Amino acid sequence: MSRPIISGERMLARLQSLGQIGAVESGGCTRLAFSDEDGRARDLIKTWLEQAGASVTVDSIGNLYGVVQGLSSGAPIMTGSHIDTVARGGQLDGCYGVVAGIEMLQAIRDAALQPSVSLAVAVFSNEEGVRFSPDLLGSRVIAKDISLEEALATQSRDGKSVAGELKRIGYAGESSPWALLPSKFIELHIAQGPCLEASGTAIGIVEGVQGHSWWEVVVQGCANHAGTTPMPLRLDAGVAAMRMACALQASACLERLPAVATVGTFTLEPNAINVVPGLARFTVDFRDAEDGQLREADLLLRSEAKKLEDLGFMVQLSHLSRALGVRFDATLCDTLQATATSRGASTQRMVSGASHDAQMMATLCPTAMLFVPSIGGISHNPKEKTLDEDLVAGAQILTDAMWSLATTA
Amino acid sequence: MSRPIISGERMLARLQSLGQIGAVESGGCTRLAFSDEDGRARDLIKTWLEQAGASVTVDSIGNLYGVVQGLSSGAPIMTGSHIDTVARGGQLDGCYGVVAGIEMLQAIRDAALQPSVSLAVAVFSNEEGVRFSPDLLGSRVIAKDISLEEALATQSRDGKSVAGELKRIGYAGESSPWALLPSKFIELHIAQGPCLEASGTAIGIVEGVQGHSWWEVVVQGCANHAGTTPMPLRLDAGVAAMRMACALQASACLERLPAVATVGTFTLEPNAINVVPGLARFTVDFRDAEDGQLREADLLLRSEAKKLEDLGFMVQLSHLSRALGVRFDATLCDTLQATATSRGASTQRMVSGASHDAQMMATLCPTAMLFVPSIGGISHNPKEKTLDEDLVAGAQILTDAMWSLATTA
Repeated sequence: MSRPIISGERMLARLQSLGQIGAVESGGCTRLAFSDEDGRARDLIKTWLEQAGASVTVDSIGNLYGVVQGLSSGAPIMTGSHIDTVARGGQLDGCYGVVAGIEMLQAIRDAALQPSVSLAVAVFSNEEGVRFSPDLLGSRVIAKDISLEEALATQSRDGKSVAGELKRIGYAGESSPWALLPSKFIELHIAQGPCLEASGTAIGIVEGVQGHSWWEVVVQGCANHAGTTPMPLRLDAGVAAMRMACALQASACLERLPAVATVGTFTLEPNAINVVPGLARFTVDFRDAEDGQLREADLLLRSEAKKLEDLGFMVQLSHLSRALGVRFDATLCDTLQATATSRGASTQRMVSGASHDAQMMATLCPTAMLFVPSIGGISHNPKEKTLDEDLVAGAQILTDAMWSLATTA
Repeated sequence: MSRPIISGERMLARLQSLGQIGAVESGGCTRLAFSDEDGRARDLIKTWLEQAGASVTVDSIGNLYGVVQGLSSGAPIMTGSHIDTVARGGQLDGCYGVVAGIEMLQAIRDAALQPSVSLAVAVFSNEEGVRFSPDLLGSRVIAKDISLEEALATQSRDGKSVAGELKRIGYAGESSPWALLPSKFIELHIAQGPCLEASGTAIGIVEGVQGHSWWEVVVQGCANHAGTTPMPLRLDAGVAAMRMACALQASACLERLPAVATVGTFTLEPNAINVVPGLARFTVDFRDAEDGQLREADLLLRSEAKKLEDLGFMVQLSHLSRALGVRFDATLCDTLQATATSRGASTQRMVSGASHDAQMMATLCPTAMLFVPSIGGISHNPKEKTLDEDLVAGAQILTDAMWSLATTA
């Protein structure tokens, strides 16, 4: 039986064209959600979907869908991602998954094939969450993590609403966000970390998305004269906080508890060269795919705080944020891995450190993701880049997997 | 032979009176050098010196001296300190040594005694260095660490010169700063750290003043996504800098190399909760009485920096400041210790962490210092306090030692 084969050249050219809408220097792109650029990019996507023979619909939160009808009825198998970017982002984050999905539909049409079940490509609204918060807005509405009304009422910092901006750019659709629920969802994306490139692996089989647990820690000691206060008589909040910060990160390094731990902010008071710090304030960012591991990390944080309290420091812990990790569908991961292997691509099981629309879709149907390597692991940056052959290979593997599911289902 | 006995009551009352000039809340005092308050305090000191039978002179940098003539001619034996304060300082820092010196002269007069050699009490200009920099200005001129011309031309932040301000408050003297060089110098001061109080010791015999070596350290790594960058692939400038800071302080704690090490300032870039720090900047304050120890500490800093460079970090070291440690006169220290012991006071040999006029005088003649305990080691603060009995004991021991030197010399 014949299989759809993509045109790598066409797909790469389309990624370039899409990247021109909101282009900034050296290959970068600024295309914030619901901006004029987002509107023009949607127009282009719509044209390409129609050329590929898909029927295009837009739902009431602005998610855009292209569907190629299958021989039988029933829920579609869906792929997709997003085309909004951060400020001064790259041309690939999100766009790659969307353009690869369109290429899949075009390859099917070029080969004059028809799937057994419908195939859909989704373009989700406001994945980045830069102009309007929360992120993953379009898929979040589908997953009922936020109500449609609340999502539409969301305001940008400059006082614009999602509803108003969608209307302005012509993408306030009329269909229901729940009209096209898929039976399976696969998202193809660039890796946003260095793992794949570092191990020389062609395809990441993404088994889940990390959850996080964010803390602020305030350590209070006693400010003192740096010249006259002997070491044993100090209650130095700075060195105490540093020891705690190092211990938490050592746990992640040595025991993977949790998978990653980051102290991204750290300040001292009074912050003077000749005064022993009286107060230190820092944040802790724990991430892990397993909630149990995150809870263990939280306990570790509390026990490290207790050690400082036992030494006479006052320690205040504030839990800033928590998000549960997401596990993708094991069977679908196996399918993706087998598909990649049959194309001769090396694979690696991994967990995404960044958020993706797929984690919302995972609450509705069997879901998984495919990653291709990112040069230097750089993303959210004009320098974001992936080798052309990796982009083409990833899109063909997505097409193979989707086609296989759509014909054997 | 009869000895001068001070009136503790009178001395304490005078400390109170002096503290009213520039008084702030709860016993504190703001009397910046060459301010109106400094002028009025000098007037009061001058009156007390004259009441004690001293002849008062003022030199051209504003140092004020009270001299009681001895039976023989020759260089005087001198005590003294300063009466300027930091903003919102205490009533004792500096003033105690001056008022105790006046009390010594008054006790000599009350007992109708005359020393063999002249006794002098000095009030040095601008010890604190808050309004006009550098600190120790009056004694620094005497020690020729700065020229008289440069000292007089020194400008405050609000554009006033030392010369102009001295004239304005009436203390631009005509005598030479080198007219009254002493044969010995003893300074009585409150301890500005917690050592004496912590060990329950009545009198500190100060063997020297710590030198310092100040550094700024900049560690450059690589900023990365806190979610997607695995621990082994990070070049986290924050945790690297913290490890270096902890190592330096551990060396001071465990090996007294140097005597004290402080990381008082520490900042991260970009300082965001979910970004691995790309850059860390911190200061290091090493102090030790021994220059060799300070040089060893500098080498330790370089070797810790090298460790980070070997891991791939770029480390930039900037030497901000260095001051040599000062050793006081061993014989004079022994004399002070014997005097204290003969009064039944417990003693402890120590090194001053803070700067004092005595360290300038030490370049000219045998010099030493006496410390009395400070409650909680608090200084440069309205809460600065010493028990009355400790103040009185210290002043009597100073008087005993000065009298003994002035009669056996």
